[in-house]
Amino acid sequence: MYKIGIVGASGYTGVELARLLVNHPDVELTVATSRQYAGKMLSDVYPNLRGLTDIVLEDVVIEDLVNRADLFFTAVPHQTAMNIVPAFLAAGKKVVDLSADFRIDDAEVYEAWYQTHIAKEFLEEAVYGLPEINRAKIKGARLVANPGCYPTSIILGLAPLLKNGIIDPSTIIADSKSGTSGAGRSASVATLYCEVTDGFKAYKVGNHRHTPEIEQEIAKLAGQGVIISFTPHLVPMVRGILSTIYAGLAKDVSQAEVDSMYQDFYKNERFVRPCAPGTFPATQFVRGSNYCDIGCKVDLRTKRIVVVSAIDNLVKGAAGQAVQNMNIVLGLGEASGLHVVPLFP
Amino acid sequence: MYKIGIVGASGYTGVELARLLVNHPDVELTVATSRQYAGKMLSDVYPNLRGLTDIVLEDVVIEDLVNRADLFFTAVPHQTAMNIVPAFLAAGKKVVDLSADFRIDDAEVYEAWYQTHIAKEFLEEAVYGLPEINRAKIKGARLVANPGCYPTSIILGLAPLLKNGIIDPSTIIADSKSGTSGAGRSASVATLYCEVTDGFKAYKVGNHRHTPEIEQEIAKLAGQGVIISFTPHLVPMVRGILSTIYAGLAKDVSQAEVDSMYQDFYKNERFVRPCAPGTFPATQFVRGSNYCDIGCKVDLRTKRIVVVSAIDNLVKGAAGQAVQNMNIVLGLGEASGLHVVPLFP
Amino acid sequence: MYKIGIVGASGYTGVELARLLVNHPDVELTVATSRQYAGKMLSDVYPNLRGLTDIVLEDVVIEDLVNRADLFFTAVPHQTAMNIVPAFLAAGKKVVDLSADFRIDDAEVYEAWYQTHIAKEFLEEAVYGLPEINRAKIKGARLVANPGCYPTSIILGLAPLLKNGIIDPSTIIADSKSGTSGAGRSASVATLYCEVTDGFKAYKVGNHRHTPEIEQEIAKLAGQGVIISFTPHLVPMVRGILSTIYAGLAKDVSQAEVDSMYQDFYKNERFVRPCAPGTFPATQFVRGSNYCDIGCKVDLRTKRIVVVSAIDNLVKGAAGQAVQNMNIVLGLGEASGLHVVPLFP
Amino acid sequence: MYKIGIVGASGYTGVELARLLVNHPDVELTVATSRQYAGKMLSDVYPNLRGLTDIVLEDVVIEDLVNRADLFFTAVPHQTAMNIVPAFLAAGKKVVDLSADFRIDDAEVYEAWYQTHIAKEFLEEAVYGLPEINRAKIKGARLVANPGCYPTSIILGLAPLLKNGIIDPSTIIADSKSGTSGAGRSASVATLYCEVTDGFKAYKVGNHRHTPEIEQEIAKLAGQGVIISFTPHLVPMVRGILSTIYAGLAKDVSQAEVDSMYQDFYKNERFVRPCAPGTFPATQFVRGSNYCDIGCKVDLRTKRIVVVSAIDNLVKGAAGQAVQNMNIVLGLGEASGLHVVPLFP
Repeated sequence: MYKIGIVGASGYTGVELARLLVNHPDVELTVATSRQYAGKMLSDVYPNLRGLTDIVLEDVVIEDLVNRADLFFTAVPHQTAMNIVPAFLAAGKKVVDLSADFRIDDAEVYEAWYQTHIAKEFLEEAVYGLPEINRAKIKGARLVANPGCYPTSIILGLAPLLKNGIIDPSTIIADSKSGTSGAGRSASVATLYCEVTDGFKAYKVGNHRHTPEIEQEIAKLAGQGVIISFTPHLVPMVRGILSTIYAGLAKDVSQAEVDSMYQDFYKNERFVRPCAPGTFPATQFVRGSNYCDIGCKVDLRTKRIVVVSAIDNLVKGAAGQAVQNMNIVLGLGEASGLHVVPLFP
Repeated sequence: MYKIGIVGASGYTGVELARLLVNHPDVELTVATSRQYAGKMLSDVYPNLRGLTDIVLEDVVIEDLVNRADLFFTAVPHQTAMNIVPAFLAAGKKVVDLSADFRIDDAEVYEAWYQTHIAKEFLEEAVYGLPEINRAKIKGARLVANPGCYPTSIILGLAPLLKNGIIDPSTIIADSKSGTSGAGRSASVATLYCEVTDGFKAYKVGNHRHTPEIEQEIAKLAGQGVIISFTPHLVPMVRGILSTIYAGLAKDVSQAEVDSMYQDFYKNERFVRPCAPGTFPATQFVRGSNYCDIGCKVDLRTKRIVVVSAIDNLVKGAAGQAVQNMNIVLGLGEASGLHVVPLFP
Repeated sequence: MYKIGIVGASGYTGVELARLLVNHPDVELTVATSRQYAGKMLSDVYPNLRGLTDIVLEDVVIEDLVNRADLFFTAVPHQTAMNIVPAFLAAGKKVVDLSADFRIDDAEVYEAWYQTHIAKEFLEEAVYGLPEINRAKIKGARLVANPGCYPTSIILGLAPLLKNGIIDPSTIIADSKSGTSGAGRSASVATLYCEVTDGFKAYKVGNHRHTPEIEQEIAKLAGQGVIISFTPHLVPMVRGILSTIYAGLAKDVSQAEVDSMYQDFYKNERFVRPCAPGTFPATQFVRGSNYCDIGCKVDLRTKRIVVVSAIDNLVKGAAGQAVQNMNIVLGLGEASGLHVVPLFP
Repeated sequence: MYKIGIVGASGYTGVELARLLVNHPDVELTVATSRQYAGKMLSDVYPNLRGLTDIVLEDVVIEDLVNRADLFFTAVPHQTAMNIVPAFLAAGKKVVDLSADFRIDDAEVYEAWYQTHIAKEFLEEAVYGLPEINRAKIKGARLVANPGCYPTSIILGLAPLLKNGIIDPSTIIADSKSGTSGAGRSASVATLYCEVTDGFKAYKVGNHRHTPEIEQEIAKLAGQGVIISFTPHLVPMVRGILSTIYAGLAKDVSQAEVDSMYQDFYKNERFVRPCAPGTFPATQFVRGSNYCDIGCKVDLRTKRIVVVSAIDNLVKGAAGQAVQNMNIVLGLGEASGLHVVPLFP
């Protein structure tokens, strides 16, 4: 029974980690922090957890909590993470960081899109935690950089095509749509019910911070530098990301050949479900689960391929993938604690 | 490993049973029927189940399927159930019936609110499957009549007050609000997205068929005949029932005394969570789970008590309670397969 | 062409006034205030108004603005209103106040439910602005207290019954459900999209501040003191209040007689639409409009009557009724500017 | 006062026409047909219209109704329209057809995407009714082919760029998202509340029938043949289309230059509102209105431009644009009856 801590347990990602961990057979939640709600029970802040955990939220005082867990999830904003992760590592703990701070290999790129990095010495060691691509490296890692939600949906959607040289990487356009939980639980006018419901909009057009992360990982798969267009949108729903990804075909290929590539590429992956030929995913069929569903269309009329991938942004796009990474790091069954059936309707 | 059949697996209640059973450690889903989708995989009709079950839907031919399971859930409309349940019982099978056909003790009352009953001989034997009230009887039952969704929320909400003689049963008014999944998956204009969303209405004012069921069970708890006002409403949400129940106080009582009654009455119940004093439930905190959350307010100004109870209509109001009944009938752990954390947000 | 000012134009009620006034043929919007957004164009804060008004929001400096309009709407919180309304009256202006500050006749009652009142001298003069009940008094008023949203739906729903002595006023229970726009546009966790959507809850059970306002006006119609039970609920929708109101019958009466009473009582009212016998209202059919739709059920089984009324809380429950009051006060056509067809779907 | 008929008045587009016409100062609704609801009042089928129109729905018997109006809207499915439009024209009536039947100039293209065309002789005469592009031709037209909802949003979004030669037409990708009202009011499982809400999906990937219509009109603006990628998506909202359109830059251009092009191109258009530089549209700010809001981003990093346009699919994407066309055809003020303020929140 490993002991696990969540730093930042009162945000939507933090409590999603708690949701998965209270039913996890091999680990125990021993630490949960929240500056805002310190002293309160987590189940008072999130009454869905009543009867399932008695854990009390506490302020982040690293020396008080560092020895009470074997592995820590840091579910905090970028810049905050880089200030606390080193202390956990120094104490010999494993860390799965859910912020962006250790995802970008090149500190200059990070600093161009975010702000100054004060823990650059860990960038090389940090492993980008997309198990379907990087499982071997995650196994031995001390520090896993859990991928962003949009990057997860886009990289998993494109990986088989990039690996097989099917598409021209210079033509990639990713049009992504996210549920509102991705914006977190902070009080803000922009995410009020009345502002979001029955509406739809694009945001951060051409300058969302997930862009360099996507480009970095796609470049590795493509074996060449890549610049992509990426536009995120806000959907009036809670959970889910659907990415519609366009790319020019680099060679003649049939729909059946591409369908086989996806089936083959993901044949041993429990959490990626290629759709049946001719069908496409919908976010409601992965709701609450760690699945990534993927469909694609070879469009010979336009000489492009269209890939559609769907995840739950809080699960495969955040907490679920983090638990998957934890399982790998700790040598547990990779799906342990993740046997959640998508909730539909 | 018990074998389980679902008759009517392609409705929302049927697929909810499947969602719970595919992760149940002690049973195996061996039969799933659907007239409309016979021949298709259940996971083609409900893609959330892809990778979790390979079961193929089949038409209802009782002699073909009756020996392939130990217990059958009949998740079919009233009147249909009475036509098939007797055959399962005759074959020595257990049945948990999710229709209304075996809930009403008095055939005359049933026939006044529904239609002619053709299997009256089973009414006396059938056990009303509300475990928190009837657990002992359910244990030995062949035929469990799984309660209606509205009745579950109202009876659990009132039971401690009725048992303690706190309220005047002749004054009960239950104002209930349900998510749209209660209307089922049939194509109909009234439940189209555009008709339901961003709107609210009452329906079947004064004549909903759950009325006699509620009155029957409340009368047993009160030890006297009871007539109630019951008004259901349609909420633009998928899952959840919230019942706001009003009753005149029959005696002087304090808020603290009533709070204690609820704590005491449900202290050994895993699936009923009385709210902390001064707090009230919300349907989003029971979403996807088998919980019933209950809060109450003793209003000395009006000499009434207001009880608010919340369930997920598809779980504690249907499939979850049915699995709970199955567990009791088969001698399994009562919560087996029901360790689903409410999905929030 | 009358000149009109809105104090508090950047809240949902304030901008709803602007929506109605920009198309009003007889008035001109000359002042719009907002502490938070002073200096910005109203159409930058609410882009739906782009191209329809160039008005710039300004801070509330009464001496700067008091002479730039003939009538002011004060769409501000209670307690704020009492601090500014007297200055407008002193300058000879008409005021339609949308706060609660001048609705309660008895200062002691006000202070028991709100806080100290500092402008009690205007309570007697203020007219409760429910035109269907108080039209004659509104005509000559300087200060109109625009009714609360819940009270509007409940009083209009009960007025014909009270006037005709059909119900026992001591038995009234009003179970009301409101869209989320009633909570206003302040940033708060409780009204975030992810907290509200796909959920339902009661709030302020037994102690909502609209209670004394409802009791006061019902008492006038009943000709006797009245204490009611009132429970508000939050619906995952933007606009709309539906009130389900229960009362014991005081005399034998048929459904047809009661239906006639409603038709008769409201036969000259443009904005109240009694439903056809046997049908009930839904909030989506009054969305965006100044209508109040009402249906009722005489339930001889329980000896109670159930009334269901629906309004758009921002229109008939706030800004629309305020414009209706303005029209009456200024001697304009009562429906002027209010010819908005309910938006459905 | 012109007399107007609506053929197909009980669908969402038909009733939206009625919503706009009941408040139109220059026309009178004299005919409304519906096979399904013949004999019922329109306001019984759509209670939002109670008190606003007494019109009774009738079956479509052309000889009975053709002389009772000056202009007919045909709000019927493709293939149905081509069967009835010729009769109206033969009787000397004007027609604004909201189906696809007369939008495609080339009958072969039409037949490749739809089915056999039986009224090809009208294709040349029919005018594509996008007033901002084709106003002069619409003025004298007998038969206006009202544009599709997706094409309206995409063509208006791209027109300034195409006219100015800013983009390479061979690189256009249009990723569009629509509210559910676009699917109409037919009972179908796919558009039930529980299937649509809290979910997001793509549909008809690579083969939606609006593709040739978009390509045809874009080709005219570009002065060359164009093939585009077009992917529609279903958003859990009622009204609104947001199109995100990508194209490679054909020349060096600055953000400021492009912003000016949009301002200039649409400077005399009442219903197109270019967004302020750096801002983008959202569907909730055009809800219920005839506006098209457009924002754009010149992305020098990717050498592409991203255009985002938003309309209400039932108004500018259907009924509102049809009324605009009617106004032009009949010589009325182009905005007559269309002064509806977008409903927000």
